[in-house]
Amino acid sequence: MIAKSQKHWSGDVAEMLRVREGFVLADVDAQATPGYEEDKVQAAEDLAAGSMQLDEYQERLFARSRVDATDAAVLLVLQAMDSAGKGGIVRHVVGSVDPQGVSITAFKKPTPEELEHDFLWRVAKRVPEPGIIGVFDRSHYEDVLIGRVRELAPHDEIERRYGAINTFEEQLAGSGTRVVKVMLHISSDEQKARLTERLDRPDKHWKYNPGDVDERQLWPQYMDAYQQVFERTSTDHAPWFVVPANRKWYARLAVQHLLLEALEEIDPQWPKADFDVEAEKKRLALT
Amino acid sequence: MIAKSQKHWSGDVAEMLRVREGFVLADVDAQATPGYEEDKVQAAEDLAAGSMQLDEYQERLFARSRVDATDAAVLLVLQAMDSAGKGGIVRHVVGSVDPQGVSITAFKKPTPEELEHDFLWRVAKRVPEPGIIGVFDRSHYEDVLIGRVRELAPHDEIERRYGAINTFEEQLAGSGTRVVKVMLHISSDEQKARLTERLDRPDKHWKYNPGDVDERQLWPQYMDAYQQVFERTSTDHAPWFVVPANRKWYARLAVQHLLLEALEEIDPQWPKADFDVEAEKKRLALT
Repeated sequence: MIAKSQKHWSGDVAEMLRVREGFVLADVDAQATPGYEEDKVQAAEDLAAGSMQLDEYQERLFARSRVDATDAAVLLVLQAMDSAGKGGIVRHVVGSVDPQGVSITAFKKPTPEELEHDFLWRVAKRVPEPGIIGVFDRSHYEDVLIGRVRELAPHDEIERRYGAINTFEEQLAGSGTRVVKVMLHISSDEQKARLTERLDRPDKHWKYNPGDVDERQLWPQYMDAYQQVFERTSTDHAPWFVVPANRKWYARLAVQHLLLEALEEIDPQWPKADFDVEAEKKRLALT
Repeated sequence: MIAKSQKHWSGDVAEMLRVREGFVLADVDAQATPGYEEDKVQAAEDLAAGSMQLDEYQERLFARSRVDATDAAVLLVLQAMDSAGKGGIVRHVVGSVDPQGVSITAFKKPTPEELEHDFLWRVAKRVPEPGIIGVFDRSHYEDVLIGRVRELAPHDEIERRYGAINTFEEQLAGSGTRVVKVMLHISSDEQKARLTERLDRPDKHWKYNPGDVDERQLWPQYMDAYQQVFERTSTDHAPWFVVPANRKWYARLAVQHLLLEALEEIDPQWPKADFDVEAEKKRLALT
């Protein structure tokens, strides 16, 4: 499907970024800007135009959920290595719509209570309600990423989780939630540059964690774990998109576009009044 | 306190809008723009400038909460008659900061489960965590507003609630949350015009509810209930501000300003690194 918003895209970005059979993460160039040949300046303009579209779609989606019996919602799942720009997506893409229609969950290391439950327990509680754009900043995929790399669970349990995730997401999609799963893909060099900047700037120190370097040293293992994730969990009902993210402006534009496409497929319309408009006009006039 | 952001204000807006002893709601002109003599165009510019300030303050507040042991947070309580512009405040004022640092709760009619508990039960669960700007779109004040007007609870219980609210808010303030309580004040005529517009525009029908006219017919009773609220619950630790709101641009600028003042009083600084910056630079360089 070609999105109406696709002004400067040279092709269908969702098609280009989508993980299909035979996908190899190692072949993705994190520096590339697939489907977009304009520059950063034009991208800023296009992002602003897309923000207005996203805002209207979101309001229609929200409005419909208040009146009609609809289950339509959107869930954006964001996964990435540290410093790849998840926060920037939330701020600059999701942040352009009315905050009343957005629900953001940043999943941290599980609490002791969460660990007593199945790994999907805390996730299921945070799926978006009808009319809402939900964002998972990290997600249940951590349980097969760091979970796998750090061996936080037995091998059999990790294996079980891929299937459990697929079942969970299929139910979610079946109940009306469009699931858009995005991995922001930066190169190891780019991460080094970004972490270095965090150390160089006192106003960025709070974003730095010494553990980031520990994880960084496991880069190849993480790439393997991501490759596994893509092979096992990129499904028709909940596909993965790998977005090259060395250029922040490209990643933001691409993710915005993926959200726009999801909303265009829902195509939310302003709901019809469930009351007698003319009668209400008369009642109001008398007050 | 004069806020640094106070460029075009002719006086301290917080002082001007604050409810003090002897305050009479009926004397407030909903059309007025206290302390601001510029026009709508200048107001839009000032709002944009204030957005950038608010955004930085919020990020500092958030950053500090991630590193230091701080309890600092802000809670904006929004109360108003229907169509007074609560949603616009959330969208245009609160919506200008990073959504990751904001928590918005729209309190609806209590559920059966909520009704089984004390009226503050559901409210206490939604107070903002450290580092967060929380917004209550309606609040525990409904329980002494519609609660009083519609006699949803016995008189003695309504009376008890004013004290319970003061105790609750005092604890909240004592634990580091700045509580900013705002009533957006529109005139009855302005409400009529806004509800009429909602009925005239199909894309606004979803915002209209026939119950709005029923509540509108109780306007004098609601004004009395608000007057009671101000007399009983405008305290040093959690003062009320009555913001004239017939002009949306004024109300947004004024509420933004109240938030900026609250943050200026907290004065959040970028947290110091809790790790050895030079050692980390070396570790990172070796990867």
